[in-house]
Order: sequence, then structure tokens, then C-alpha cells
Amino acid sequence: MPRTPIEYRDASAGVRAVFDDIKRTRQVDDVNNFWKYLAHDPAVLARTWQSVKEIMAAGALDPLTKEMIYLAVSVTNGCPYCIASHTAAARKAGMSDAMFGELMAVVGMANETNRLANGYRVPIDPAFE
Amino acid sequence: MPRTPIEYRDASAGVRAVFDDIKRTRQVDDVNNFWKYLAHDPAVLARTWQSVKEIMAAGALDPLTKEMIYLAVSVTNGCPYCIASHTAAARKAGMSDAMFGELMAVVGMANETNRLANGYRVPIDPAFE
Amino acid sequence: MPRTPIEYRDASAGVRAVFDDIKRTRQVDDVNNFWKYLAHDPAVLARTWQSVKEIMAAGALDPLTKEMIYLAVSVTNGCPYCIASHTAAARKAGMSDAMFGELMAVVGMANETNRLANGYRVPIDPAFE
Amino acid sequence: MPRTPIEYRDASAGVRAVFDDIKRTRQVDDVNNFWKYLAHDPAVLARTWQSVKEIMAAGALDPLTKEMIYLAVSVTNGCPYCIASHTAAARKAGMSDAMFGELMAVVGMANETNRLANGYRVPIDPAFE
Amino acid sequence: MPRTPIEYRDASAGVRAVFDDIKRTRQVDDVNNFWKYLAHDPAVLARTWQSVKEIMAAGALDPLTKEMIYLAVSVTNGCPYCIASHTAAARKAGMSDAMFGELMAVVGMANETNRLANGYRVPIDPAFE
Amino acid sequence: MPRTPIEYRDASAGVRAVFDDIKRTRQVDDVNNFWKYLAHDPAVLARTWQSVKEIMAAGALDPLTKEMIYLAVSVTNGCPYCIASHTAAARKAGMSDAMFGELMAVVGMANETNRLANGYRVPIDPAFE
Repeated sequence: MPRTPIEYRDASAGVRAVFDDIKRTRQVDDVNNFWKYLAHDPAVLARTWQSVKEIMAAGALDPLTKEMIYLAVSVTNGCPYCIASHTAAARKAGMSDAMFGELMAVVGMANETNRLANGYRVPIDPAFE
Repeated sequence: MPRTPIEYRDASAGVRAVFDDIKRTRQVDDVNNFWKYLAHDPAVLARTWQSVKEIMAAGALDPLTKEMIYLAVSVTNGCPYCIASHTAAARKAGMSDAMFGELMAVVGMANETNRLANGYRVPIDPAFE
Repeated sequence: MPRTPIEYRDASAGVRAVFDDIKRTRQVDDVNNFWKYLAHDPAVLARTWQSVKEIMAAGALDPLTKEMIYLAVSVTNGCPYCIASHTAAARKAGMSDAMFGELMAVVGMANETNRLANGYRVPIDPAFE
Repeated sequence: MPRTPIEYRDASAGVRAVFDDIKRTRQVDDVNNFWKYLAHDPAVLARTWQSVKEIMAAGALDPLTKEMIYLAVSVTNGCPYCIASHTAAARKAGMSDAMFGELMAVVGMANETNRLANGYRVPIDPAFE
Repeated sequence: MPRTPIEYRDASAGVRAVFDDIKRTRQVDDVNNFWKYLAHDPAVLARTWQSVKEIMAAGALDPLTKEMIYLAVSVTNGCPYCIASHTAAARKAGMSDAMFGELMAVVGMANETNRLANGYRVPIDPAFE
Repeated sequence: MPRTPIEYRDASAGVRAVFDDIKRTRQVDDVNNFWKYLAHDPAVLARTWQSVKEIMAAGALDPLTKEMIYLAVSVTNGCPYCIASHTAAARKAGMSDAMFGELMAVVGMANETNRLANGYRVPIDPAFE
């Protein structure tokens, strides 16, 4: 049953390889629970980590911006685990208290105006098409 | 019935004052449909614009980052009007094609892992509390 | 393929009986598209109508309040069909322009503060448990 | 206040009749909390059980497939109670660890591509209309 | 870190002024946790309270109806804090057990039919445009 | 601007390789719009297709079950493109009218009871932990 975490000492070689790559990439001593639960399905674990690793690396957007976007989505969806873990990740990447406050304000406002646009049935301006 | 936009020429003095402030702040010739529909309720119009103006101004986060967060929320909620208008706003604020591509990748991945965390019922790590 | 409406003249006796009850209950000449599409699955049609009929009847809450709650949910979920049909139903039940404006304001604010509560990870006050 | 479960010994005859039918249909010794809380509103209890009983019975889709679809929706919506209860129900109906892993992978991917389709504003292909 | 509530005795003058206005308006001895967490960002606190105060005041809709709409949105979004606090607020404003039961029934039904309309891809009736 | 599809004749070698693999795997003459829009970001295109290909292949769950789960999520999220494309895919994989009707009934019921569980604040039964 996938209700317990899989610890490194109990993991298969394939799972350990993913855990090692996570620890090396993030420079942490242990992986967080998300990966220990996904490890029940090694194919999902490997694919998800590979995608996260590629997507969250610095590119046209810096890692802090990406973590704040991740947090904005998680707050909108109301995922408690994801809010906790990505708040921590964004702080580690440099999010200050002031940045967190403004991030929440934008997320709140966007969720409000999304519904006002729905409710008033606002047609898209030709300039935005 | 709130199914038609209120144009500047037909607007009350209070609504015109808000429209003028939007045009001045954003340096545009006309306000977009969202505001023309909200104008059916002048109190909602004034309050919403005042909040948007304060929240989206440069602060600890720059306007481009704020627009991308707004877009991330709108894409997650699936609001067609908001996606169209905030894609345009983010582009105007400097979002390149590469930045848009990475933004979408992060939004997609966050929506995926939010559900994996839900489904695997992952408990929050003590370090994240 | 369930991509066309089933009109009364083409409907089975069982579907016609439901359509007749909708028309009688709502005092309308024809049923709206929602029911014409559900008619592809007569069991779903009959069960859904029976539930809607019971739930939306006057009780501890009056029909107008119920229609506004229905609209609040539909706006939050972003269902275009439901927003259009329940705006019409609420207007028919007595929703004025002012009531609509206040309803939208409450829906927008609730969607905003739901996310602020998520993002700030506010614990439930003992008094609310 | 609807904050305590209604146990069989304290239930009205009407509520007991529903509880008895749930226990008989599912071959369980007691109903789960969901029903004990709905019992605060006997009309909602009876109607909800009748619908669930009809909808979840074997038909064109087998009960395991139906339980996995129920779980996919609950994971997407992030309902902790529903995820817990329908994971248990799906396991009882025959869902293996491997099936659970694939179910989660599909749910995660669908939530991701739903947002990519939103964000890229992809028009529906004529072949899909 | 915004993980602890800010109590009145530790609050700045600006935050105390908002707390005082909340206590006076709602005639309560202390503000609930939501405000104590928002107080980490005094600008968000002041703006959110000002909006809530205006929007939730009696107008074309009475306070009880507004609280029930707020609860309907919170239940749809699955925000545990908001469900707890607005259930309490609606009860205080006069929501009876029977009204709560009917409110939940409408919210449940709307969430169901929103998806049936989506899934059957029902086009909007010309009369609703 | 990512508002036009990228056709095969205009695609880079890398994009063509993905398109060719989609056409081969699905035995279709052309890829659908989703892939033509993702092609604006070749890395997203390649990664998304690779994941979809692996996840949707027959495994512990058959392709039809997977397509119906995909559709259940898309209907819950209200993504018009995804509903259209995965209805078509599920039909191609063998979904009959009767199966579609039952799928919609389960999706609707799950969305309803998810909210009833939220609203009644039902605690998880120890047996489900």
C-alpha cells in the first residue's frame, strides 16, 4: 500500500539513483517525502524528477521566479503539501517576507478577477486575440 | 442587464474618473472590456481598480514577475478572458517567447505534482512546517 | 454521438415525460439545451431532473437565494453554460442589477480570501472547530 | 450543529433504513462517516445514497473502473476525505499497486496538459467538433 | 516567517487600527486567525479588511445571504479554514440547520451539473446569450 | 507569438521527429493542434510527448480506461480543448454511448460528493487512514 515513505536504505538501485541525483542537484542530505512516496512507482518517480529537474533549472526565467510561480499555482489549487514545500523552496531561493506578501496579493487578486471576468461574461477584446 | 460594455461617452462622472486613471496609469487610449463591464457596478469598478493598481505596481517584485504570476493563476483556473488579457500584459511588460514557454512548463508541472501529492497523500515533512 | 440535442418530437416516451414535467414545473414552452443533451442518457436525465426539482424548490431557502448560490458556484468553476443559464434563472426569480453586482463582489472576494488563507497557512481557530 | 456523526442507535427510522440499505449493498458492518454526517439532513442522505447506488452499480462500466474514475476526480479536486475513502473502495474493488500508480500518472498528466492547452490557447481541431 | 499569528499586544499602530475596526464592526473581543496572519503584510491586511467590510455589509443582499454565498464558494474550492470560519459566520447571521442542509444540496448539485454541462459540451441557448 | 500552429512543412528537424513519432504511434496522418502549438517550445513538446506516450500506453490499465480517466479530469477542470480531444480519443479506443453516459454520471456524482464531504467537514474514518 502506498501509505508509507520508502527510505533510501530500503530502496531499489533504480530508486536510489534518482534519490542520489535529487540530493546532488539540490545539495540536500535527504529527499523530501514527495519523492519517498512516488518511489512506490519507480517509473513515475524517474519521469517526474527528470521533468522537474529540467523545468526548474535556470533558463529564461531564474529559479526564484519559477519557485514563486510554482507556489502561486499550489496556493490556487489549495494543495497543502505543495504550499508547504514550495514556500520552503522559494525562501531558500531568496524569497523575502516582502516578496511573499506581494506574491500572495497577486494570487488573491487574480483569483478574484478571474471570477469577475467569468461572472460578467466579458468578451475578449480584439486586441488580445 | 450587464451584457454590454459601458463606453466612456456613456459613463457617469465617477466611472469616467476610474477610466481616466486606468488610461493614465497604463498609458493606453482606451480601457479594455473587463473595466467596461465592471462599470455596471461603479463601487466594484472603483474598488477593483484601486486594488489592482496598488498590487500590480513595482515593489519587492517587478511588474513583469507579477504579470507572469497573474497569468499562471489564470491558466490554472482556465479563465479565457484573463489568459488573453494577461498574456498581452505580460508581453507588454517584457515576457519573451522563451519566458512564456518556461512559464507554461512550470505551471503544467505544478498542476501535475499538486495532484500526485494529493493522490499519494504525502504528509508534510517536519522541516516544512 | 452525444453532440446534438434531442428534440421533443424525436424523444422516447420516457424522455418526453421528463421534458413535460420540466415544462410544467418551470412554466416554459420548451426545455433548455442542458436537458436536450442529457436526454442521450435517459437514466441520467431522469435522476438529474428529479434531484434538481427537489433541491431547487422553495424550502428553508427561497428559490432566488438558491439560484444565486447556484450561480456563485458556476462562476467559481468557470462553467460558461451554467453561468449563462443560471444568470437567466436568477433574473427570472427576481435578481436585480444591484443584487447581481453584490453577488459578484462576494464571489470575487471569497475566491481571493480562500487563497490568502491557503497561502498564509492559517490554522483554524478553536472557536470554529 | 452538523459537527458530529449520527450513529445508528441514535438515528431516526428513515435514516436507519438508508443505513441498512448501504450496509446490505456494500456488505459492511457499519456505514462510513460520510453517511453519518449527511444524516443530519435525511432528504440529502436518501437522495445522495439512491444516486450513488444507481451510478456505481455495474453497467456498461465495471465497478472498479467507476471507482478509479471517482478517485481521479477526487484527486483533481483535492478532497482529502474523498481521496481516502475512494482509494479504499478502489482497492476493495481490485485496484492493484500498479494500477494505482498508472492511475496517478494519468491524472497528473491530464492536469498538466489541461493547463498547457489553456495557456497556449489551442483552438479545437475541426475533427473534434 | 509568516507562520505565527501577530497578536494585538505585538502589533504596530497601523495593524492595531485595523484590528480595532474589525472588533468594533463585528462586535467581537478578538480578531480571528486570518487577520492575525495577514498582519504580516499591513498593506494586504488593510486593503483586504476594507474590501471585506464594504462587500459584506447589508445592501441589496442581506448579510446572511452574503455569508451563505461566501460559504458556497469556500466549499466549492475546498478551503478548510474558510469553510470553518464562514460556517460559523453564517450561523451567527442566522443560518439554521435546515438552511445549511439546503445550501449544501444546492452547492453539491451545481458542482455536479457544471460537469455534466462541460462533458456533454452543451451549447448556450440563444435565449441565454 | 504562440498564437498560430506550427505545421510540419515549417517545423525544425527536432519538431518533425516528434511529429513523426506521434503519427507513427497513433497511426494518424497529422498531429492535432495541441502538438502544433506546443511546437513553439521544442523542449516542452518533446518532454510532454515522451511522457504522454509512456503514460498512455497499455500497462496495468488498458488504453480505454486511461482515456476515460483523462476525460474525467478534463471535464472536472472544464478544459474545452481537452474535453473535445479526449472524447474523440476515448471513442476511438472503444468508448460506447452507454459508457460515456455512465462516465459522465460518475464524474458528476464525484464532483457533488466531494463538496458534500467538504461542507459537512467529514473526518476521515480510521479504517481509511
